[in-house]
Amino acid sequence: MTHITPEAPLTRLEHDLIGERHVPAEVYWGVHTLRALENFPITGIPISDSPFLVEAIAAVKEAAAMANHQLGLLDDERFAAIRDTCEEIRAGQWHDEFVVDVIQGGAGTSTNMNANEVIANRALELMGHAKGDHHVLHPNEHVNLSQSTNDVYPTAVKISIILAARELLAAMLRLEDSFARKALEFHDVLKMGRTQLQDAVPMTLGQEFGTYAQMLAEDRARLSEAVALLHEINLGATAIGTMLNAPSGYVEIACTHLSEITGLPLETAVDLIEATQDCGAFVQVSGTLKRVAVKLSKICNDLRLLSSGPRAGLGEINLPAVQAGSSIMPGKVNPVIPEVVNQVAFQIIGHDVTVSMAAEAGQLQLNAFEPVICFSLAAGISRLEQAIVVLAERCVDGITANVEHLRAEVEASIGLVTALNPFIGYEAATAVAKEALLTGRGVAELVLEKGLLPEEHLQRILRPETLANLGPKPPVR
Amino acid sequence: MTHITPEAPLTRLEHDLIGERHVPAEVYWGVHTLRALENFPITGIPISDSPFLVEAIAAVKEAAAMANHQLGLLDDERFAAIRDTCEEIRAGQWHDEFVVDVIQGGAGTSTNMNANEVIANRALELMGHAKGDHHVLHPNEHVNLSQSTNDVYPTAVKISIILAARELLAAMLRLEDSFARKALEFHDVLKMGRTQLQDAVPMTLGQEFGTYAQMLAEDRARLSEAVALLHEINLGATAIGTMLNAPSGYVEIACTHLSEITGLPLETAVDLIEATQDCGAFVQVSGTLKRVAVKLSKICNDLRLLSSGPRAGLGEINLPAVQAGSSIMPGKVNPVIPEVVNQVAFQIIGHDVTVSMAAEAGQLQLNAFEPVICFSLAAGISRLEQAIVVLAERCVDGITANVEHLRAEVEASIGLVTALNPFIGYEAATAVAKEALLTGRGVAELVLEKGLLPEEHLQRILRPETLANLGPKPPVR
Amino acid sequence: MTHITPEAPLTRLEHDLIGERHVPAEVYWGVHTLRALENFPITGIPISDSPFLVEAIAAVKEAAAMANHQLGLLDDERFAAIRDTCEEIRAGQWHDEFVVDVIQGGAGTSTNMNANEVIANRALELMGHAKGDHHVLHPNEHVNLSQSTNDVYPTAVKISIILAARELLAAMLRLEDSFARKALEFHDVLKMGRTQLQDAVPMTLGQEFGTYAQMLAEDRARLSEAVALLHEINLGATAIGTMLNAPSGYVEIACTHLSEITGLPLETAVDLIEATQDCGAFVQVSGTLKRVAVKLSKICNDLRLLSSGPRAGLGEINLPAVQAGSSIMPGKVNPVIPEVVNQVAFQIIGHDVTVSMAAEAGQLQLNAFEPVICFSLAAGISRLEQAIVVLAERCVDGITANVEHLRAEVEASIGLVTALNPFIGYEAATAVAKEALLTGRGVAELVLEKGLLPEEHLQRILRPETLANLGPKPPVR
Amino acid sequence: MTHITPEAPLTRLEHDLIGERHVPAEVYWGVHTLRALENFPITGIPISDSPFLVEAIAAVKEAAAMANHQLGLLDDERFAAIRDTCEEIRAGQWHDEFVVDVIQGGAGTSTNMNANEVIANRALELMGHAKGDHHVLHPNEHVNLSQSTNDVYPTAVKISIILAARELLAAMLRLEDSFARKALEFHDVLKMGRTQLQDAVPMTLGQEFGTYAQMLAEDRARLSEAVALLHEINLGATAIGTMLNAPSGYVEIACTHLSEITGLPLETAVDLIEATQDCGAFVQVSGTLKRVAVKLSKICNDLRLLSSGPRAGLGEINLPAVQAGSSIMPGKVNPVIPEVVNQVAFQIIGHDVTVSMAAEAGQLQLNAFEPVICFSLAAGISRLEQAIVVLAERCVDGITANVEHLRAEVEASIGLVTALNPFIGYEAATAVAKEALLTGRGVAELVLEKGLLPEEHLQRILRPETLANLGPKPPVR
Repeated sequence: MTHITPEAPLTRLEHDLIGERHVPAEVYWGVHTLRALENFPITGIPISDSPFLVEAIAAVKEAAAMANHQLGLLDDERFAAIRDTCEEIRAGQWHDEFVVDVIQGGAGTSTNMNANEVIANRALELMGHAKGDHHVLHPNEHVNLSQSTNDVYPTAVKISIILAARELLAAMLRLEDSFARKALEFHDVLKMGRTQLQDAVPMTLGQEFGTYAQMLAEDRARLSEAVALLHEINLGATAIGTMLNAPSGYVEIACTHLSEITGLPLETAVDLIEATQDCGAFVQVSGTLKRVAVKLSKICNDLRLLSSGPRAGLGEINLPAVQAGSSIMPGKVNPVIPEVVNQVAFQIIGHDVTVSMAAEAGQLQLNAFEPVICFSLAAGISRLEQAIVVLAERCVDGITANVEHLRAEVEASIGLVTALNPFIGYEAATAVAKEALLTGRGVAELVLEKGLLPEEHLQRILRPETLANLGPKPPVR
Repeated sequence: MTHITPEAPLTRLEHDLIGERHVPAEVYWGVHTLRALENFPITGIPISDSPFLVEAIAAVKEAAAMANHQLGLLDDERFAAIRDTCEEIRAGQWHDEFVVDVIQGGAGTSTNMNANEVIANRALELMGHAKGDHHVLHPNEHVNLSQSTNDVYPTAVKISIILAARELLAAMLRLEDSFARKALEFHDVLKMGRTQLQDAVPMTLGQEFGTYAQMLAEDRARLSEAVALLHEINLGATAIGTMLNAPSGYVEIACTHLSEITGLPLETAVDLIEATQDCGAFVQVSGTLKRVAVKLSKICNDLRLLSSGPRAGLGEINLPAVQAGSSIMPGKVNPVIPEVVNQVAFQIIGHDVTVSMAAEAGQLQLNAFEPVICFSLAAGISRLEQAIVVLAERCVDGITANVEHLRAEVEASIGLVTALNPFIGYEAATAVAKEALLTGRGVAELVLEKGLLPEEHLQRILRPETLANLGPKPPVR
Repeated sequence: MTHITPEAPLTRLEHDLIGERHVPAEVYWGVHTLRALENFPITGIPISDSPFLVEAIAAVKEAAAMANHQLGLLDDERFAAIRDTCEEIRAGQWHDEFVVDVIQGGAGTSTNMNANEVIANRALELMGHAKGDHHVLHPNEHVNLSQSTNDVYPTAVKISIILAARELLAAMLRLEDSFARKALEFHDVLKMGRTQLQDAVPMTLGQEFGTYAQMLAEDRARLSEAVALLHEINLGATAIGTMLNAPSGYVEIACTHLSEITGLPLETAVDLIEATQDCGAFVQVSGTLKRVAVKLSKICNDLRLLSSGPRAGLGEINLPAVQAGSSIMPGKVNPVIPEVVNQVAFQIIGHDVTVSMAAEAGQLQLNAFEPVICFSLAAGISRLEQAIVVLAERCVDGITANVEHLRAEVEASIGLVTALNPFIGYEAATAVAKEALLTGRGVAELVLEKGLLPEEHLQRILRPETLANLGPKPPVR
Repeated sequence: MTHITPEAPLTRLEHDLIGERHVPAEVYWGVHTLRALENFPITGIPISDSPFLVEAIAAVKEAAAMANHQLGLLDDERFAAIRDTCEEIRAGQWHDEFVVDVIQGGAGTSTNMNANEVIANRALELMGHAKGDHHVLHPNEHVNLSQSTNDVYPTAVKISIILAARELLAAMLRLEDSFARKALEFHDVLKMGRTQLQDAVPMTLGQEFGTYAQMLAEDRARLSEAVALLHEINLGATAIGTMLNAPSGYVEIACTHLSEITGLPLETAVDLIEATQDCGAFVQVSGTLKRVAVKLSKICNDLRLLSSGPRAGLGEINLPAVQAGSSIMPGKVNPVIPEVVNQVAFQIIGHDVTVSMAAEAGQLQLNAFEPVICFSLAAGISRLEQAIVVLAERCVDGITANVEHLRAEVEASIGLVTALNPFIGYEAATAVAKEALLTGRGVAELVLEKGLLPEEHLQRILRPETLANLGPKPPVR
């Protein structure tokens, strides 16, 4: 910054509705972005922390420029400069120019303005002009041509959430595979099933882990369905959905280009006025993320419970030790990975309330609170993806079973008596169970002593493999 | 109760695991239900307040009896008595015998026990025996044969939610039609659109109401999808999903009978262990109900806002007066119908948190908290349905528009300047808007005065019908 | 209803702003209530289900009448009739005339109107007139004199919540005592403490139960503080807090009378405009109820966990059996009482979201959504009180400890090694712990074998009573 | 990093329970921190982003070292090095060494370990030793002496929240003053009050803004009370509250030193076992923050509503323009500052659900989920403080009133009729109101025409100043 020559001024002067302001000469953003920086010093997290969003906006701007060019509204030179700039942004070249806070008033206007300014100034450079020469290329008149924040921003947000959700879905599949492999590994490991934390009837550890794989498979299906809704966009709706200032044909052409650029099967909404104010798809994605979080948290609760011990707990499984558990208790190992997943789940469940309130608070033709919806979804998806990968790699894959202990519990169990219902009846079985509990004796022993069933018959009924309804080992996945 | 003869004892003696208890002689429920009444004096709301649930349990019990009979586990006489009793219950004959509290511990066991006892005792009567003659027909050994609360209860809950949701969907369609009719009625009524509560650009009141119809259509689609998930049941899973004590073939036969009885396309879950512990479908329905609530609340917020006044508000539309608004302010009429809908929406959004927490708290092979999930969903669906019908009939259908006032606002609007962007540019248009705001003058007047556009051109651009992108009137729905 | 004579018409004709309507002749409520019944068929729960609310409204009406009489606005005869009617209502005589739905639009207007009409018509009877003779005594002009729903309703709601909260606080004290008695009973029972579900260091079961008593004591203190805020009322504020139509002196006199009638130290808010629109005190009470629910749910989670088993769980304590646990598994006993408390807690946590949204949605000079706030708080408090009493009486009081099992766990524990840190260091202790875990051997055995400490010293350090920091038995509470 | 000489290895070797690992030579953190970095790549936000937390941990470590030194457990040299390091950290010198993720499993163990390692290695440097020479000064044996994560971490978190809350309280006072000044400025500005968005009775804009000041004053009082609860700490409780390994006297001495270091009136909890597992104070602070958010959001809703327009809205006040409102609509200015405050409020309301779930999920002697509680509170407080300052400085301070328009609305209002109730009765007043509404005529005009009141009397009653109950202008605040 030292030794500035007269030829290199430190700032350039820009103006907006309110007046003139100096902006640093070296930055590509301009006066609108400067205002936003001053108005929204909220989280300290710039939108560049959401690379998917930055890249999605660039894609939208590029598609809009292509449509404007094709319709004769934008000349070749300006179009080429805008297009090349958008490509640069999509390649990651200018992310740090996207500086406005993720939480902002104005329904995303500052994000859109930030993009318009960066694109205009970089495009001016590419055209051989100085930053700020807006009479040549104007952020609003050219970069934002045929557009409004109200169609650009939600379209970009949707694309960014789709891209992030893809990575989350891949992580979920990764975890599903981990559980499925464990289900196979533990296929024959008999254990007591529990309902309401009380001993119930026998099952296998493979069945237990297979359940978690199945849950994840269903959650992936639901999340995919919710994310599919995001492919309906309102690009070309402009201010309120009436397509004011968007030329005839623009809506269709811009959507087609955007689909090509992003490789996503995007579609224009049937009712653009509705699509411009509605947050239904975001609410649906948030609600489905919450579902994933709820069930993942349940799974982690189970893992922590089953691995409780080592000596005064259930002690059924062992989670791999990934760090020392205590600064004071030597040798203690804690279920830190499931614990961190629980916490991410709690955040997502909280975010869902935030998203619901923000969606509910939208008034008339626009929801002004989309930035907090976008941030809540993006942060939730990203954290959940990270947490799931960690859970698969650093926890589930390394789980081992305490096979002997598990079988011993089955053999000592009173729950075996349930299997005798069809042969001795609920009332007689209840009496046996009660006596076993009081005396500490075994169910089989008592049944024989009372002559309720011949021994051979009893043995046949009480075969744990039968009780657990253990099928053949499935093929390796 | 007076003049009891020796032949009619006041109570009968029953026993369970804990001991003996007298139950009133005239009731059909027994000792298990008595314990539950004592253990759960929580809300004072009996499960009979949820007729869909009572009827669904009876349907499940009937289907189970049919399967047991078909498989040779239940003789003709007992089967006929159970079946006939279930039919009576489904016809509404014994609802007031379903007395346990809607909020109960035990994962629905008390609800199932209540049903088993009522069915057993009524079936005994049909067979010519006295209530309580359980050596002839036993609540657990015969009525509950091949069953567990853990498959019966969630199956019945799912059926009850499906039935309730059908009525809700019908109510939503009713409201959608109301909005669609208003959209047609107000097709030509020009008004200012607003973003962020600030005047934006022109639209029509028909477009505004059409948006609400479209929102409801999308919400119906989403809710239908979520409800479809409830058709996957775990009947025959018994205690934990291993089908212990359910004979071979039972699962398929029982599902087939239940589908026939209810007329619903029910299917057995692929993984019964997973299906027995998983609350995913309930969470999905709850999240989708929340979506409906969020959007309906937004619509009601808009209706209240648009009808604010009569003299110091937006005053765009008039809601029909349905009651005096104030005990002190004569002549005041308030938007009480939208207000009550808002409140129901807030309840449902709160219920969704309850459902999420209850689902998350499930441990291992069973979720013990299904009763609060069931109650939250059932109450929410019922209230939402009531509120929506009231909204359609007592509010939307009677809405009128203040056409003159709406058009005057458009004509005085600064937002018209947006349409001049393509012709005079964003910067020049901003200057005109700023001057109009400061001086109170009209946009068109200023544009002409400054010679920015010839009058004829300006008139053409500023035709409100053009600005609102007003299409032809759609056919009557 | 039979044998109606010509002299006894079935209905009487009333009118309001909207027009004329027939109301059943025998009811005391009138046309305004009729409209409300038609407008709000939402939950089916009438306000009479909240006896505290009905009685509180009667108290407010009586205090208002006393102030009006004292200020010369109400003559002796009308005053006496109104006062006597209010006393009858407070004694429970007319509760079933309070028929409007608990969830209603209109900010409580229908509740207030229902009260005005019942009081007017009953007072007319007492004065020797027929119901409906409103030229003699008018619901709005006399019963509602100097009042508005907007001061009457929130004042009554606050009183009703105070009364309900008193019962809740008493229930909490009851449960606190149960835990304190158990803490005494289990004072010497050594057990392993756990952090993150992993064995940590020794403690006693008495300490564990003492913790729950302490939690309840703190929660009672917080709830009392929150409830204290409800004593600030806005009676006399009338429509928006400007005291329009309330005569000079009315505010103070009415508050004094209301304090006397209710026996509560009520105070008039400093800023009546603020007090009329603000829901802060309700939000505070709701948030504190949520705190109570959160902690109570945590306690119940612990009770369910500690009593898991009987053979494949932690098996540390036994909850009393209060009902058979399963329709299929004989002898199974489940923790149904803690489970029902968990579910009530989940409801209250959900209600808090409802209350927050309702409070946030209030606009300008009034919150129109107070009915749902009132209902959420009242239902939550009532259910929590019921659940807590059940928890104390049917669960905690009967808990027993498995003393031998608990001590054996301490003796086998690796966590004992923590106590050796000050003597052999964290690093050496970690090595011992690791070896103990791998080999299944005991900590003390390994320390001696390695010569890390002399036996006598080791014994002194490892005295469980020392480790648990067990103080003298406290005096009986 | 280039030109590394043999004397300067790139890494140093450390070991823990699991094995050996190389850590970068230049960092002060060690193997435990390295494990945490690998285990918790969740948010990408390091704990150094919470400077209050880093400084609070250093204060706790310093106080612990002072107590250990005073009790003879720590020699002079080690003590001095630890103390000086803690002072350096508190002065901000080593914040970037606090690298573990804000969301982490392990109940804060990784945060504590990170601190222990940084302090040990920096202290070793001060003592003239190399980083990693843990036989001289050990992170666990010396820096963590007499401590456990389970007392250090919650104590530090509490201090950090207290410090952050102080800044929030100051911001709230700043905003309160802004509203109070506006209340004074608008003292005489008559306007219509509204209930349920419908015109009610007259008031002044000063009264309206005074209400907001009063709300903030009450919220500050409640927040201060909640924050006061955080001063109760469990330092010295060690692992589970039994003070295992903390020498006699340590608890009191450490608390005293910590109070002196921080300048806060800290107190040791009465029941350390309860205090170690209880999250009640955090839940209370979170619930009170939610209250603040709820009310602030309501205020912002009002500001947006009152400033709606400029021509088709309520148009009562003007918010200062702080940025251009639209990328497409020239001259549009939006209420972006209130909008961003709304969004922060929605986040905090969501965080409260997260905190509630995390607190509820705590099991037995410790809550493993304190990190997400800490992060949710810290982020919420920080964002709320920022948002409130912006609201005061960039919005409220610059608000102007449209005085003429406001008075005209009062004069045209039907709500004036309310004031005639005491003179002409509710029924007659209702008829006048109804006719005024239908005909568009004025209330006063109709009353005179009907001869209901003499003109002079009417004028006296309808003086707006009287209606608004306008008192004398308060002294400047």
